[in-house]
Amino acid sequence: MSRPLDRLRAAAADREAAGLRRALRPRGPDHDGLIDLASNDYLGLSRDDRLVKAAVRATEKWGTGSTGSRLVTGSTWLHAELETRLAAFAGAPRALVFSSGYLANLAAVTALARGGLVVSDAGNHASIVDACRLSRARVVVTPHGDVAAVEAALRERAEEHAVVVTDAVFSVDGDLAPLPALHAAAVRHGALLVVDEAHSLGVVGESGRGAVYAAGLARDARIVRTVTLSKSLASQGGAVLGAPEVVETLIDTGRSFIFDTGLAPACVGAALQAVEILEKQPELPERASSMARTLAGAARELGLETADPAAAVVPIVLGRPDDAVSAATLCAELGVRVGCFRPPSVPHGRSSLRLTARANLRSDDLAVIRRALTAVVERKVGK
Amino acid sequence: MSRPLDRLRAAAADREAAGLRRALRPRGPDHDGLIDLASNDYLGLSRDDRLVKAAVRATEKWGTGSTGSRLVTGSTWLHAELETRLAAFAGAPRALVFSSGYLANLAAVTALARGGLVVSDAGNHASIVDACRLSRARVVVTPHGDVAAVEAALRERAEEHAVVVTDAVFSVDGDLAPLPALHAAAVRHGALLVVDEAHSLGVVGESGRGAVYAAGLARDARIVRTVTLSKSLASQGGAVLGAPEVVETLIDTGRSFIFDTGLAPACVGAALQAVEILEKQPELPERASSMARTLAGAARELGLETADPAAAVVPIVLGRPDDAVSAATLCAELGVRVGCFRPPSVPHGRSSLRLTARANLRSDDLAVIRRALTAVVERKVGK
Repeated sequence: MSRPLDRLRAAAADREAAGLRRALRPRGPDHDGLIDLASNDYLGLSRDDRLVKAAVRATEKWGTGSTGSRLVTGSTWLHAELETRLAAFAGAPRALVFSSGYLANLAAVTALARGGLVVSDAGNHASIVDACRLSRARVVVTPHGDVAAVEAALRERAEEHAVVVTDAVFSVDGDLAPLPALHAAAVRHGALLVVDEAHSLGVVGESGRGAVYAAGLARDARIVRTVTLSKSLASQGGAVLGAPEVVETLIDTGRSFIFDTGLAPACVGAALQAVEILEKQPELPERASSMARTLAGAARELGLETADPAAAVVPIVLGRPDDAVSAATLCAELGVRVGCFRPPSVPHGRSSLRLTARANLRSDDLAVIRRALTAVVERKVGK
Repeated sequence: MSRPLDRLRAAAADREAAGLRRALRPRGPDHDGLIDLASNDYLGLSRDDRLVKAAVRATEKWGTGSTGSRLVTGSTWLHAELETRLAAFAGAPRALVFSSGYLANLAAVTALARGGLVVSDAGNHASIVDACRLSRARVVVTPHGDVAAVEAALRERAEEHAVVVTDAVFSVDGDLAPLPALHAAAVRHGALLVVDEAHSLGVVGESGRGAVYAAGLARDARIVRTVTLSKSLASQGGAVLGAPEVVETLIDTGRSFIFDTGLAPACVGAALQAVEILEKQPELPERASSMARTLAGAARELGLETADPAAAVVPIVLGRPDDAVSAATLCAELGVRVGCFRPPSVPHGRSSLRLTARANLRSDDLAVIRRALTAVVERKVGK
C-alpha cells in the first residue's frame, strides 16, 4: 500500500482510540420512525406541502440548476425576488443569496475584514472560524460573550478598519450573544458588526425576523447579518443582509460568491415560500422556542446539565465523547433521534447531546422524549 | 455616514475606475431569448424533462431540505444512492457528496494537506486557492502546467507528507492538466494527487467519466478527485471521489463537510438522474466537446486569440477589462450570451470572453454565433 494512505489509516486509528470516529447513517424519509430532535428543521417546514409545491414550481419553470455563477447565468428573477423578500422580512436594506451559509460567512468576513482586524467570539461556528483564517486580517479571538475583551481588542488595534463577528445564537450552547453591547462597542470604535443569524432567523423576534431585528438594530447600516436558508427556512443556501455598500462589496470581491454556482431554483423557491409563511403565521417561531423551553425544563428537572435556550437549541452536556455517543444511541433505541456533539464540534470534555425543538412537536412526542431522557439519567447514575 | 461604509464606498470607486465593478443581471427562464454560451450547462440537461421529474420526485418524497449536517440528519438514502452511483460511474472506490463544489475542494485540500506541503498550479480555481490558504500547510504555487516545478517542490520538501492539487481542465483557459506526468511525480515522491474535475466530468473521457478516468488512473488510490454536480450534471453541489481512507478522513475531519447542511433532496435527485443519462447516452459528452472545437475554430478563423479546447470551455482573450465588457455587450445585442472574465477571475491584461459549448447547440445557433464574433472582430479592428 502506498505511503500517503498509510498516514491516513494511522490517523484514523488515533481518532478511533479517542472516540472520535464518525459514520454516515443515511435515514429514511420519515426519520426511520423516530421523533426528530436532531435536525435544524425548527419550524417543521421541510415536508410542508406549501414548500414542496413551491420547490416543484420553481424546478418546472427554471430547471434543476442555476447553470452558473451568480455573476454569469446563475441569477434568475427568482433569486432577485428572494433577495427582495428576505431583505424586507428582516428589515435590511439589501440581501445577497449564496448556495450555502458556510459560503455566505466566508464571503462576508473575508471581503469586509481583509487588511484589517477581525474580532471573533470563541464560541463562533466553524464557518466563521474558517472565514477569519481565510481573511488575511489579524484575528483576535475573544472569550465567549466577553464584550470588554471585544472593546479592548478594538481600542488597542493598529489597523484602520475592524470587523466584530459573532453568532446571534450559538450553535452548540444555544445562548444569545450580547448584541446591543457588541453593537455599541463596534460603533464607538468605527467597526462593522457581522452577526450570524443561522439559529435565530425564524425563531427569535417578531415573526422570526431574528435577533438583530429583535434588538431594534435591523436598520443600522453598520450591522451585517448572515443567515442560512437551510434551518428554519427548510431549504438550502445562505444569504448576507446589509447596506448596499456591503452587498456591492461582496458582489465585486467575495470569492465564495463570485466563484460558486448560484443556488438551485428548487431551493430558492422553497426559501421564498418559507419567508411568506413566516409573514402569515407569526405564531410558528414562538411555538418552536416554547417547545425548546419545555425540553430544557424537562432535562433540568431530571438533573441534567443544560442551559436556558435563546432559540430552539437545547444542549445537554455529558462530558466524555463515549458517554455522549452511548446516550444518543439509548435515546434512538427509545424512539428519539438527538444530535451528538463531540470535538471538534465542541471543546474537549464538553461532549453533549443536542436537542433541537420543532414547532410541530406533539404532546405525545414529549412523553416519549421524557422517557428517553430519564433513561439517560438512570444509566449515568448507574455507572 | 459611518466610517466603515465610507471605506467600502471609496474602495468601490477605485474598482469603478479600474473597470472592475460587477452587477447582477437576473435572467428570465429562457435566457432572455439569447443563445446561451455563458452557462456551465454543458450537456443542456438543466431543463431536461427527466432531470426535472427526478428533482420533483425527490422533493415530494424527501422534502425541500436535508434538514441538517450530513453527520446528523442530512444524509438520506438518496444521498447514499448518489454516492454509490457517482463512484461507480467514475470508477472510484467511494464518493462523498457536498452542498457545493467549493466546499468539496475546501474539505479535500485542508483535510489531506494539513501539517504538510501542498503544491498548487498557478491556474487553479479560486476554491482551490482558498483551500490551500485554509489548509495551514506550506503552499508552493507552481507555474501553470509545469511538472518539473511540481517535482522539484516535492523533492525538496522537509515535510513528511505532501499533496499536489490541480484542475483537470482549467476553468479560464480550458486546457488539460498533464495528469499522467503529475501522477508519476506524486507517486515518486509519496504524495497524494488531488484533481478537480469540475469542467471535465460529463465532457471528457468515455461517457464523460472525466480526465482521470480517460488517463487510465481512476482506480489508483493515490488520486483524489473533486467534482461539481452543478455543471454537466445540471444540479448543485459537489463531491470528493477517492479511496475509503480518504472519504473517512473527510467524514471525521473535513470542516466544510461536518459543519455544513447536506445537499437538498431536489439537487441529489437531479444529479443522480444526470449520471444515469450519461450512462445511457454516451454520445452527449462528445457532442459538447465537438461543439467546443467548432466554436474555437470559428474564433480562430476570425483572427481571435483562443486555444484548443480540452473540454467545453473556449476562451477568447481580449486584454483590457473594458474591451471584454463591451465585446460581451455587443454579443448580447446580437443574440448571444457569453461569459466575460476580468480580474480577479483572470490575470491582469488577460480579460476575456468565455464561450462554453453545449451538447444541444443547433446549427442555426452557430450562424448567429459567427455573426456575433465577426462583429467583435470588426469593432476591435475599427478601434
